Amino acid sequence: MYNLAELSSADKMKEECGVFGIFSKSEKKDLSLLTYFGLYALQHRGQESAGIAVCDEVDVAVHKGMGLVSEAFKSEDLQKLTGNISIGHVRYSTTGSSLITNAQPLVARYLGGPIALAHNGNLVNTDKLRSELEQKGTVFLTTIDSEVIINLIAQQVDKATLEDGVIECMSKIEGAYALVIMTRDKLIGVRDPHGIRPLCLGQMSDGSYVLSSETCGLDVVGAKLVRDVAPGEVVVINKDGYKVISTVSPRRASCVFEYIYFARPDSTIDGINVHLARQRMGEVLAKEYPVEADIVVPVPDSGISAAMGFSHATGIPYENGLMKNRYVGRTFIQPKQELREFAVKLKLNPIREVVEGKRVVLIDDSIVRGTTSGKIVNLLREAGAKEVHMYITSPPIAHPCFYGIDTSIRKELIASDHTVEEIRQYIQADSLCYLSNEGLLKAVGLEENQLCLACFNNSYPVKASESVGVDKYILEARREKSE
Amino acid sequence: MYNLAELSSADKMKEECGVFGIFSKSEKKDLSLLTYFGLYALQHRGQESAGIAVCDEVDVAVHKGMGLVSEAFKSEDLQKLTGNISIGHVRYSTTGSSLITNAQPLVARYLGGPIALAHNGNLVNTDKLRSELEQKGTVFLTTIDSEVIINLIAQQVDKATLEDGVIECMSKIEGAYALVIMTRDKLIGVRDPHGIRPLCLGQMSDGSYVLSSETCGLDVVGAKLVRDVAPGEVVVINKDGYKVISTVSPRRASCVFEYIYFARPDSTIDGINVHLARQRMGEVLAKEYPVEADIVVPVPDSGISAAMGFSHATGIPYENGLMKNRYVGRTFIQPKQELREFAVKLKLNPIREVVEGKRVVLIDDSIVRGTTSGKIVNLLREAGAKEVHMYITSPPIAHPCFYGIDTSIRKELIASDHTVEEIRQYIQADSLCYLSNEGLLKAVGLEENQLCLACFNNSYPVKASESVGVDKYILEARREKSE
Amino acid sequence: MYNLAELSSADKMKEECGVFGIFSKSEKKDLSLLTYFGLYALQHRGQESAGIAVCDEVDVAVHKGMGLVSEAFKSEDLQKLTGNISIGHVRYSTTGSSLITNAQPLVARYLGGPIALAHNGNLVNTDKLRSELEQKGTVFLTTIDSEVIINLIAQQVDKATLEDGVIECMSKIEGAYALVIMTRDKLIGVRDPHGIRPLCLGQMSDGSYVLSSETCGLDVVGAKLVRDVAPGEVVVINKDGYKVISTVSPRRASCVFEYIYFARPDSTIDGINVHLARQRMGEVLAKEYPVEADIVVPVPDSGISAAMGFSHATGIPYENGLMKNRYVGRTFIQPKQELREFAVKLKLNPIREVVEGKRVVLIDDSIVRGTTSGKIVNLLREAGAKEVHMYITSPPIAHPCFYGIDTSIRKELIASDHTVEEIRQYIQADSLCYLSNEGLLKAVGLEENQLCLACFNNSYPVKASESVGVDKYILEARREKSE
Amino acid sequence: MYNLAELSSADKMKEECGVFGIFSKSEKKDLSLLTYFGLYALQHRGQESAGIAVCDEVDVAVHKGMGLVSEAFKSEDLQKLTGNISIGHVRYSTTGSSLITNAQPLVARYLGGPIALAHNGNLVNTDKLRSELEQKGTVFLTTIDSEVIINLIAQQVDKATLEDGVIECMSKIEGAYALVIMTRDKLIGVRDPHGIRPLCLGQMSDGSYVLSSETCGLDVVGAKLVRDVAPGEVVVINKDGYKVISTVSPRRASCVFEYIYFARPDSTIDGINVHLARQRMGEVLAKEYPVEADIVVPVPDSGISAAMGFSHATGIPYENGLMKNRYVGRTFIQPKQELREFAVKLKLNPIREVVEGKRVVLIDDSIVRGTTSGKIVNLLREAGAKEVHMYITSPPIAHPCFYGIDTSIRKELIASDHTVEEIRQYIQADSLCYLSNEGLLKAVGLEENQLCLACFNNSYPVKASESVGVDKYILEARREKSE
Repeated sequence: MYNLAELSSADKMKEECGVFGIFSKSEKKDLSLLTYFGLYALQHRGQESAGIAVCDEVDVAVHKGMGLVSEAFKSEDLQKLTGNISIGHVRYSTTGSSLITNAQPLVARYLGGPIALAHNGNLVNTDKLRSELEQKGTVFLTTIDSEVIINLIAQQVDKATLEDGVIECMSKIEGAYALVIMTRDKLIGVRDPHGIRPLCLGQMSDGSYVLSSETCGLDVVGAKLVRDVAPGEVVVINKDGYKVISTVSPRRASCVFEYIYFARPDSTIDGINVHLARQRMGEVLAKEYPVEADIVVPVPDSGISAAMGFSHATGIPYENGLMKNRYVGRTFIQPKQELREFAVKLKLNPIREVVEGKRVVLIDDSIVRGTTSGKIVNLLREAGAKEVHMYITSPPIAHPCFYGIDTSIRKELIASDHTVEEIRQYIQADSLCYLSNEGLLKAVGLEENQLCLACFNNSYPVKASESVGVDKYILEARREKSE
Repeated sequence: MYNLAELSSADKMKEECGVFGIFSKSEKKDLSLLTYFGLYALQHRGQESAGIAVCDEVDVAVHKGMGLVSEAFKSEDLQKLTGNISIGHVRYSTTGSSLITNAQPLVARYLGGPIALAHNGNLVNTDKLRSELEQKGTVFLTTIDSEVIINLIAQQVDKATLEDGVIECMSKIEGAYALVIMTRDKLIGVRDPHGIRPLCLGQMSDGSYVLSSETCGLDVVGAKLVRDVAPGEVVVINKDGYKVISTVSPRRASCVFEYIYFARPDSTIDGINVHLARQRMGEVLAKEYPVEADIVVPVPDSGISAAMGFSHATGIPYENGLMKNRYVGRTFIQPKQELREFAVKLKLNPIREVVEGKRVVLIDDSIVRGTTSGKIVNLLREAGAKEVHMYITSPPIAHPCFYGIDTSIRKELIASDHTVEEIRQYIQADSLCYLSNEGLLKAVGLEENQLCLACFNNSYPVKASESVGVDKYILEARREKSE
Repeated sequence: MYNLAELSSADKMKEECGVFGIFSKSEKKDLSLLTYFGLYALQHRGQESAGIAVCDEVDVAVHKGMGLVSEAFKSEDLQKLTGNISIGHVRYSTTGSSLITNAQPLVARYLGGPIALAHNGNLVNTDKLRSELEQKGTVFLTTIDSEVIINLIAQQVDKATLEDGVIECMSKIEGAYALVIMTRDKLIGVRDPHGIRPLCLGQMSDGSYVLSSETCGLDVVGAKLVRDVAPGEVVVINKDGYKVISTVSPRRASCVFEYIYFARPDSTIDGINVHLARQRMGEVLAKEYPVEADIVVPVPDSGISAAMGFSHATGIPYENGLMKNRYVGRTFIQPKQELREFAVKLKLNPIREVVEGKRVVLIDDSIVRGTTSGKIVNLLREAGAKEVHMYITSPPIAHPCFYGIDTSIRKELIASDHTVEEIRQYIQADSLCYLSNEGLLKAVGLEENQLCLACFNNSYPVKASESVGVDKYILEARREKSE
Repeated sequence: MYNLAELSSADKMKEECGVFGIFSKSEKKDLSLLTYFGLYALQHRGQESAGIAVCDEVDVAVHKGMGLVSEAFKSEDLQKLTGNISIGHVRYSTTGSSLITNAQPLVARYLGGPIALAHNGNLVNTDKLRSELEQKGTVFLTTIDSEVIINLIAQQVDKATLEDGVIECMSKIEGAYALVIMTRDKLIGVRDPHGIRPLCLGQMSDGSYVLSSETCGLDVVGAKLVRDVAPGEVVVINKDGYKVISTVSPRRASCVFEYIYFARPDSTIDGINVHLARQRMGEVLAKEYPVEADIVVPVPDSGISAAMGFSHATGIPYENGLMKNRYVGRTFIQPKQELREFAVKLKLNPIREVVEGKRVVLIDDSIVRGTTSGKIVNLLREAGAKEVHMYITSPPIAHPCFYGIDTSIRKELIASDHTVEEIRQYIQADSLCYLSNEGLLKAVGLEENQLCLACFNNSYPVKASESVGVDKYILEARREKSE
């Protein structure tokens, strides 16, 4: 079996996680089911494992499973999870570390009682922190950052409050982190000082507070957005309500790929609706690279919003030229080499009647390795397209990400050592146009110093240590297989 | 667990099957994998069970499983299925009869040797035929029409050729049937005299012939369309090539819902591309009911093509106002009554930034019970839409289908006993416009006497016996549970 | 994975089936659960698949599954099976034909209504009967004898009663068959004219009648034995009670291996308790071959009863010299060649403290291929046994069985072309003693003309056609894989 | 579903674990498969979960699963576990704590590198140790003792060697523990100072060393016993061989129930063969309570060895009066109350022909709650036994165990508040005879001060804190459900 979804999205960056949490005002709320709904809405942020932990005044209970939320949980699993606080997590992971042991939320017990934590993002000084803790005699049972974070919090148990410990911990950890943390009486949301990964706070009609990576997680449980958690903020929720503690934020550096590809179009992140931002990317792209063409065709689903914007801006009709098979799941039987050619057709099929004889503007969000882009261009040509102009709603990705995006592919970034013209030849498009840095900023509506654009411009808001990246996966791959 | 897909598509007609077949020219072809690909492309026609049978010169082997194609087959299942002819089947079925015993293809042995058959459609004189056979001492091990058909063919074993037996059988069976039949040396495709269900013939580059319910099944294996199988035709494929035998066709009566909803947009059925037909439905609808509005929003995915057409015709901008959750699968944990309201939001989430303050034309393909339509209208209003005008690309469905579409819901057809105005009030739309019969014909591009429009106009091309429909499901539900 | 049970019992004949049935007197009886209990008790007769069918006044429902009874049924499966008549079946089968399609009971519908049938045994004229039926246009969906039997009964639908049809069918079928047959209002038990396979009738305290292959099936549901079904008898149970119809029985020829190995020691078959019969085999064996030895050790579990009898007769102490691992199940991970030696030790471990320095009489029921016997002798020697005398409670098996015992091993019968001395050398025992034919008859307590001893003396009560045996499995293996 | 095995062995004490380990001399050894074999042989010590960890020079890999060894591991699981050191664990556990998170071996990383540990037994000062560690900031991810032990070892990382750390750890932990510990270059076996749980050292023909709870684990991999690990000993195995370090052993207090019930009869523990010890228990029992009877019948399987001894000593014939169903597995469908009576019959069926009219001496190893004993006595009476004399090969169990035996049943010990005569009446036996303390010592062949007899005489070798026992299970049950 192999992962067809991966096959045809090998040219995609991969988000590693989504987090969710609820602190219930009303006793009888079915919190684990609401968290299940929330994770369902955040499923696009991670499909390898899912977990939900709940807490009452006594203790924490947790259930985790591999696969989609719908696969990881059965009805009886949720029924066993009762309490008045709940957190959840969906995870994308490379094969090596895709283990139930490493699934989240991580549940632990320490002097302060039971604690559970879910983490979206990636620390860059984990190895150093882990070493320091090991020097003090700390034992680690997993290979995930979350265990380091919980240990750092546990070491601050003499602090007056849990949030004091969390803040002290924040002074030590570096990198990207959106955290939801739960104890017997508190739900805490934390966003790293650069605000690399998103996190927002909502409220349900009964007053219950909700934390979610994206607003689509609020919508699904009927919660209204209260505010985004700002970079460096700690939101502490208990039975009396919520309070926000601000810590130092050197500069905001939100991941721009949330707008380009990761987030759901119906989410609004830090005040900017994702669908509209993508539409503007299409509009700006249209202005940057005028083209004579008959139709604008998106690569579904990620190119749809931008293709509409492009169409609006140019008047070139928006058309469905590529049909996506909605039933392509995570597993698929591996075709022998000779049949491998069919694999892309299983996911995407051109509509000849739409594209035949046409000059096509094809809109996609990004190019990672370039192989899938080449196949799609070829599909359109075979279906009779006269010209195929590939328009990309981001600048070339030339540098790896250390903040929670799949880094195992960094050596395979085609733009790291090829010019745009070389890439165009590789994918055999008639033209290839990347959105400019400035165009991207304009479309998103933020300043350069508010975003992390490192994968485009090599300017990393947080320095990563040398050992970050591939090496840790080797360790994990070796360590434990799916139990 | 319950079926969320079903929940939010309860307002949809349901196709019952898709069929596929290949006769290989080259010895080494991996036929079972190609058939698996073909079924993958036809997955939208049936998600309850899938099966593949292969034949060599000696015998037939078969594997069937419940669920999606990807769930029903593992790599080793396909490896065990080797041969030079192969047929496959995907099935939608109501719960009661969703049994592995009733899954297809049906494999049998008779005097003529091994035979396998896959059937899309529904006979209307099964009970009579079954009774006649029972009078002769026939024993039935399943409750599906296919076993009746195989028995009728077996009774013609003294005919010179298999196709003679098939033609004799066709003189007895009434109703809708697109069949693929396989023996040791032949692959036969059959379409009923009215051509109610679609079937087409394609050819791969090595000369191998392919039969498929839709052209998307040809595309995925790289086959080119040779021709549609015409109503009443029998296509006989063997190692020497193929021949077509025409039988009497009283009048063509192809199911118009293939164009409205069932078929994949990238398929071309009887010469008409489905996506373009739907676009034209939107265009005609725009002309039939002029409206002042700010945006055109499709109910994804079935309303997308028509919404584009509507936008092209009116100049009202096409917009993504409803986000569909791509991870909503076939199973989902049942929320308690109080949380049931969230279920529709799990599948569809409005984008407030798009619809707020807007006059929305909402495009959908049909209304069955009206409950989901009402929920979607409500979702848009809650997201701030100023007006919601529901435009439907078909006339009101007021009569049940006896030819292979889920008939268990016939009593629940809201249009069977409500006026358009009553339905509008029920779904709380500002206006409700159904495409006219004439408009539909114009958009599809066929004459009234070429299509089956019975669900709209009560004019059935083949008379159904009284007992057809719900009764048989009671029998099946009782009979055998999933083994 | 491979079957360790099979591995270390490769020197065992294999029974192919067990059958069970209940006709309830009281409305509320939980028949499917009682049948489940009955099959549990008969599990030793077949571990490859299990099935239960129930009937009420309207129709039959069935559930079948692969594996042990405990694996094939979940609680909800039984709950769905309600009615006032029930039959069940457990099956052993060679890999090739171990398919859910071929699992029993077989459920069908014909002019007489619904019918279900479970069969223990093997017909020897199936091919001929099948051909004759095919000539009349009959279609077969399975490759099991039961479908032939149901068709033959269905052809007699003009007979006054079902039992008349069954009797007519009995005049055509040849071979071994213990059948339970169920319709809407009757439960019928049938034993072939030679009584090759066992069948008995019991009654529960509420008056409900029970049919079972062995009395242990009666015991587990609290039923008392009413009588054994005699060779050639048809027992018809309905709401008025039961009646027995006798048909011609040329001569009784009950399978002697039921007493030697197949049946459970706590069962009493045709008036003879199995445990006591085996004890007497040990006693007779002791008299036939006097030996000087220190301990008598059974090969567990089949040699236990006989070893006790041997000990009683000789005064040589009965000892547990071989420990059987109770957790060895049906699946086991295949060791590489170098570790294959360990496989037998996983199942049997000698107790050195018991056997060291001892002259051991090792008691087993039979030798098929001789490989396992050799390994066990070797195990004892390695554990320090001074002498190992292998005593077998049956004569040499030199001829295949055509009546329902695994025939695929007939070519591998070591006694078919080796003398006793050659076998002794092969298994490296100090002596090898087989119970004589006369001794066996004496121990069982029946005359030679009441038993089938064909595997010992080549005198078959029913002539088997040439094609019986291995050939049919080839067909089946090809035909359908586990769905 | 419920656990039939549990049902009919509810009158049994339950061992909680078995441990196994190998240090390979030859590079190519298939260690994970050998460990799998070892666990297979130790399966009787724990059936709820199984785990294997392997180590090479770099890191540790582990796989754990719920259920039997054969259920927890597939072939590919073992193939992924490669290395030259391996440890394994089987676990019995009450439902509440039967979680994959708590399954063993526990794998961790600390300053000393990777470490894995498997534990048989139960500490009595865990809560105190855990509290002390928490005071230092330690975080716990599981609720098992093993995590406390690993943390204590990790705190000694400044010690010269791992074994120094282990010895220091031993000075802190109290209770029962047989440990196997593995790092990159060492395999260590540890037995607590009282030697409560057994552990032995063996050697394979290639020089590889093996640790196992019982010798049957050595036998299955072809290893010869080198020596038992003595109370308080630490056995350190590395590439140069093994060395033994003795620590203070206040007094030996080996659990006598290993001889009475837990261990496999073919194992030899601390020089005493279990089967022979049980035979002697039967012999002594015969002398302590002379009886006039016709047959001696064991409750299979635990009473078999003793029944033989009883028969040898008295001359009363040993007989199989109770047939055990070998297919009764861990799960079974729950009968409604009215059918619950059948449950015991599913496991045990009396052979009427053996017991009818007889005075029966029934031999069992112990009585816990008395319910099953009563049912068995009743079974025999119903089968016609004239008298039933229940002989028990242990003194009355009146006190709970804190050293690794299922403690949740302590309140249900019938002997804790009933006289022997009261118990006799409860189980409705004609007489009830318990082996005396002295008789037990004589049969085992050890002095009172060498054994733990606390469950009989309330004299605990290690004082348990108040909180040990039921309370911790409440915590665990709450904490995490099976993932």
